[in-house]
Amino acid sequence: MATIPATGGKLVLKVDMLVGGTDVPRGMTYRQAAKKAVAMCVSDFAAKGARPDSFMASLGLRRGTTNADINGLALGFRDAEREWGVRLVGGDTNEAKELVIDCAMIGFAEEVVGRDGAKPGELLVVTGTFGLPPAGLMILEKGARCSAGFRKKALESVLYPNPALDAGLALAPYLTSSMDSSDGLARSLHTLGEASRVGFAVDSVPASPGVGAFARANGLEFERLVWAGGEEYVLVGTMRRKSLAAARRAVRGARGTLLVIGRATKERKVVLSRGGAEEAIPDEGWTHLG
Amino acid sequence: MATIPATGGKLVLKVDMLVGGTDVPRGMTYRQAAKKAVAMCVSDFAAKGARPDSFMASLGLRRGTTNADINGLALGFRDAEREWGVRLVGGDTNEAKELVIDCAMIGFAEEVVGRDGAKPGELLVVTGTFGLPPAGLMILEKGARCSAGFRKKALESVLYPNPALDAGLALAPYLTSSMDSSDGLARSLHTLGEASRVGFAVDSVPASPGVGAFARANGLEFERLVWAGGEEYVLVGTMRRKSLAAARRAVRGARGTLLVIGRATKERKVVLSRGGAEEAIPDEGWTHLG
Repeated sequence: MATIPATGGKLVLKVDMLVGGTDVPRGMTYRQAAKKAVAMCVSDFAAKGARPDSFMASLGLRRGTTNADINGLALGFRDAEREWGVRLVGGDTNEAKELVIDCAMIGFAEEVVGRDGAKPGELLVVTGTFGLPPAGLMILEKGARCSAGFRKKALESVLYPNPALDAGLALAPYLTSSMDSSDGLARSLHTLGEASRVGFAVDSVPASPGVGAFARANGLEFERLVWAGGEEYVLVGTMRRKSLAAARRAVRGARGTLLVIGRATKERKVVLSRGGAEEAIPDEGWTHLG
Repeated sequence: MATIPATGGKLVLKVDMLVGGTDVPRGMTYRQAAKKAVAMCVSDFAAKGARPDSFMASLGLRRGTTNADINGLALGFRDAEREWGVRLVGGDTNEAKELVIDCAMIGFAEEVVGRDGAKPGELLVVTGTFGLPPAGLMILEKGARCSAGFRKKALESVLYPNPALDAGLALAPYLTSSMDSSDGLARSLHTLGEASRVGFAVDSVPASPGVGAFARANGLEFERLVWAGGEEYVLVGTMRRKSLAAARRAVRGARGTLLVIGRATKERKVVLSRGGAEEAIPDEGWTHLG
């Protein structure tokens, strides 16, 4: 149990559980897994414009977990503390059949950005590009082929997920709705759209550089990597057109990225709009409706 | 992610992870497991005199978990909400190799009772008796024999752990130190003693009725059941002698129990003191020192 001085406004609470069998790919160390567990929570704070303050970590450790493994977890939590300015204030340790790290994070905010504020005509924005984490997983788990440079970037995106907290905090005042994209860009668009009762027309696909070539070299669907991969921990949100210039300055000041990829629409469907033609972007996975 | 209006004072945060393989005995339903996971957190709030407000639940579910199981979890959380006046405000669901329920609970308090405030000469008090949960586990897991009446009480203590939240809140203003006894009475006494730099002399063994007969009938050490069992979720604390009358009234008003079982001592050892003789109460388990 920890006590934390409560400041004004609202308390923000978030939990995210990392499970060894599904969230820890081959080649990820305990240190990386610990930091990832914290990143999963930080990403949500970034997307909501709430500054995280502290976190607790509940651990499930396999019998035979070594002191080096436990030390790795401690180092990973310290890495997270330094990276995002948060404090580990307690936790709980148990024996389990696989590694489990549940991160419970709290912070304070005057207001948080919701999912239901998008209006037709507003801009659709993201704070990063998509497709590297699913490519990195294919490299780690299935030995997918690629250049050394792409491999490095793709693996980094998997092993060191890095939600842009400063950019999210800087952007929050300009957002009418937002969420993080940990479940994939398509899922985020559908979720935001349903909550706000709007649709989205995407006219610029925010693919990370090299993802197209990687997809071709490995016989994979480019679209699936970009839309349905997930684990990008990028903010997906909407803003009024008149906010764009100020929002760009704010994000630049936080050394972040801001990309306009489309707009919210009255018609409640999520589509890719290119060259006058529209293709539906389904909620889960990608189906070419061409 | 949930937002909760922050009131003054201190924010109190606690996590506790229930793991199927170690915390869910044979015969415990999903509904009971869910409520137990919340009880594990409530117990710590009760011991610290902090009123819990809300909780989140991170779930690890085995492949093949049925809708009935998930419904059971939901009912168990609702049971907990009603029993302790807390609110489930969110969570996270994952696939895992065994059932995992991590409860993250928050509350607010002006002050919480620490572990380091006990002074020599103060009274050692508990809010319940000990030995039923370990007996219940022996019945569930090993088929230990006992009367029908004892069986019912012992199983209830395992399947419906019930930290005395109201009694803890009522008692808190009178306590100089406290903690909960989820790891067993002996462990609690050593932990409190070390934190407060005192020892304890216990002169009244707070055994639950029937535990002695149960131990004899099954060839078990009575002392081990009472001192080293754990999962009683009882408050163990200290108070000044002059506080006792008012504390008794307060706990009675909360329909709780308050037992004086000994006193804090200057000499930093934990002993059972009976008939002028002293026996050491070891930190873990029980060794008869004659």
